Amino acid sequence: MAVTGGLEVLPVHGIGDVMPGDDLAGLIVGAAPWLRDGDILVVTSKIVSKAEGRLVEVPADGPEREAARAEVLAAETARVVARRGPTAIVQTHHGFVMAAAGIDASNIDKTHLVLLPADPDGSARALRAALAARGLAVGVIVSDTMGRAWRNGLTDVALGAAGIGPLRDHRGEIDPYGNELQLTEMAVIDELAAAGELVKGKCERVPVAVVRGYPGTGPADGPGAAALIRDPDSDMFSLGTAEARAAGLRDAARLPDAPGGGGPADPDAVARALAVVGDLLAPGTRVSEAPGTLRCAAPDDSPAALLRLGADVHRIRAALAAEGLGSATATDGATLVLTLTERQM
Amino acid sequence: MAVTGGLEVLPVHGIGDVMPGDDLAGLIVGAAPWLRDGDILVVTSKIVSKAEGRLVEVPADGPEREAARAEVLAAETARVVARRGPTAIVQTHHGFVMAAAGIDASNIDKTHLVLLPADPDGSARALRAALAARGLAVGVIVSDTMGRAWRNGLTDVALGAAGIGPLRDHRGEIDPYGNELQLTEMAVIDELAAAGELVKGKCERVPVAVVRGYPGTGPADGPGAAALIRDPDSDMFSLGTAEARAAGLRDAARLPDAPGGGGPADPDAVARALAVVGDLLAPGTRVSEAPGTLRCAAPDDSPAALLRLGADVHRIRAALAAEGLGSATATDGATLVLTLTERQM
Repeated sequence: MAVTGGLEVLPVHGIGDVMPGDDLAGLIVGAAPWLRDGDILVVTSKIVSKAEGRLVEVPADGPEREAARAEVLAAETARVVARRGPTAIVQTHHGFVMAAAGIDASNIDKTHLVLLPADPDGSARALRAALAARGLAVGVIVSDTMGRAWRNGLTDVALGAAGIGPLRDHRGEIDPYGNELQLTEMAVIDELAAAGELVKGKCERVPVAVVRGYPGTGPADGPGAAALIRDPDSDMFSLGTAEARAAGLRDAARLPDAPGGGGPADPDAVARALAVVGDLLAPGTRVSEAPGTLRCAAPDDSPAALLRLGADVHRIRAALAAEGLGSATATDGATLVLTLTERQM
Repeated sequence: MAVTGGLEVLPVHGIGDVMPGDDLAGLIVGAAPWLRDGDILVVTSKIVSKAEGRLVEVPADGPEREAARAEVLAAETARVVARRGPTAIVQTHHGFVMAAAGIDASNIDKTHLVLLPADPDGSARALRAALAARGLAVGVIVSDTMGRAWRNGLTDVALGAAGIGPLRDHRGEIDPYGNELQLTEMAVIDELAAAGELVKGKCERVPVAVVRGYPGTGPADGPGAAALIRDPDSDMFSLGTAEARAAGLRDAARLPDAPGGGGPADPDAVARALAVVGDLLAPGTRVSEAPGTLRCAAPDDSPAALLRLGADVHRIRAALAAEGLGSATATDGATLVLTLTERQM
């Protein structure tokens, strides 16, 4: 019984080892003479990197290898996102957030590391153009394996794409109940990369899969996989939890001695901040609250009590900052006076 | 030309609206009489929820609707992971990290919200058993749409699974160059869910896809999608960046006045901490360093200078904590003495 609207996901067998300078389009067409217009090729980034010569020579073992590898990682890293033990999650110069910047030592001899393609969207466009020159109108995805937050196991995603729209946008569509669909921009090239991975065995040398029957290919190269890179400023997870927590400690170390410049401080937020530190203040410390102001007085005016009050008030200011409140300190004899405002974020 | 080793991904048309109490196995077999042993069914969680009656009645609009929705969200939330404006990313009681706890108002009339299935692995097992009772030996995945860190666009992943191994483990395998493969546990049920999504149109009522030709099905239900839930303690992204940063500010507010109990403090870490605060200390403050100790003296012994020194030393202590160093404060007249150790994490 025929089912309409389905897809096929097909492995390309027999590509063999890819060497720098190899003509990938030629290797793929040779191994898959059955390719058709409208097919989407999901190409493992490693063979793209190899064909493009994105290899770095490193010692085969020993501490020299580790040192060389660390140097390569630093060169591929735009910023460190998170680190735990030997694992570094970094953002690459392309913008991808990946363990070890996607540098790979598998399926390559021990004296080389494989870097990601320098421009995976460009690689996808070039491969697509080379296939078009052979008379094949296909979409191309350059894929790699990535980890993710919150879920165990890795999946393949798209690093580069050409001839296939990266996102399928359902926003503004109306469901059968008359509700407008929201938040449903699907990252279809990542789903296509995942589907391709299912037929590519890591050790059986199937570096290319073909998705047949997906309607998304078009005449234009399109925006590519770069459209899937989220700007760190709009990313709620731009830093690892431990790294962000350390950044918060440094924020406390460098707390500006000025109000935030926003509106008057929310009394509930002030109460929450005082609850955080309440049990830690020196016994006998008097904290009196007026709208937008806290007056903090030590139990006596000994040097020890004044030193302690200075520290305790900085504790209070850190707790206020955690609530989004800015504070400015003034000294009134042996009393510290905090002026509070909402911080401008 | 026949290609061996491929997959088909087939839509199941004609399932129609699912109502509480409906027999999902019957609906699916009725719509897809072409199902075969070894097929993997990717079933949108929403129809599972509807069949199981996981609906909550809410007002159709107005502030009452928003209040009811907030109450439902709170009930479905085990902990808030991150919040920005109206968006809340939470961990559900199942352990999934999802926007709005996966609560859905689309493809349902305006007076109801759809919750996730209470036990998606259990739902997958029950559906698989019901299909087995009809003579079909298949794998079942219950899927839903999720966002992710770092990448734009959503993908479908597995919330539940039965009869299909959630992870394909390449660890310990040897590549053709003799390198042992590492870090390559593939989350195949997520990739199968993604492949299924490609053929399910959100508005065209195709809530079930079938993956045919994937070799992973077996006689046992297996561990299910619960195996993909990462323990927050081992997750480097268990909190949003802003939330973790605020937690760091609260850490500074509650800094324990005790050394960490680890080994002696790394002098490089001490130097980095002092560099963070160096330009903020009161002019004339004297900081003298000995192994494991910092002595901090105010420029004079006025109350203002002592209050300021107390705050400045708490700044230093927060910067030390950001470097993983614990500190204990002692007062020596008008001088504060910090004892430093590596913190036990």
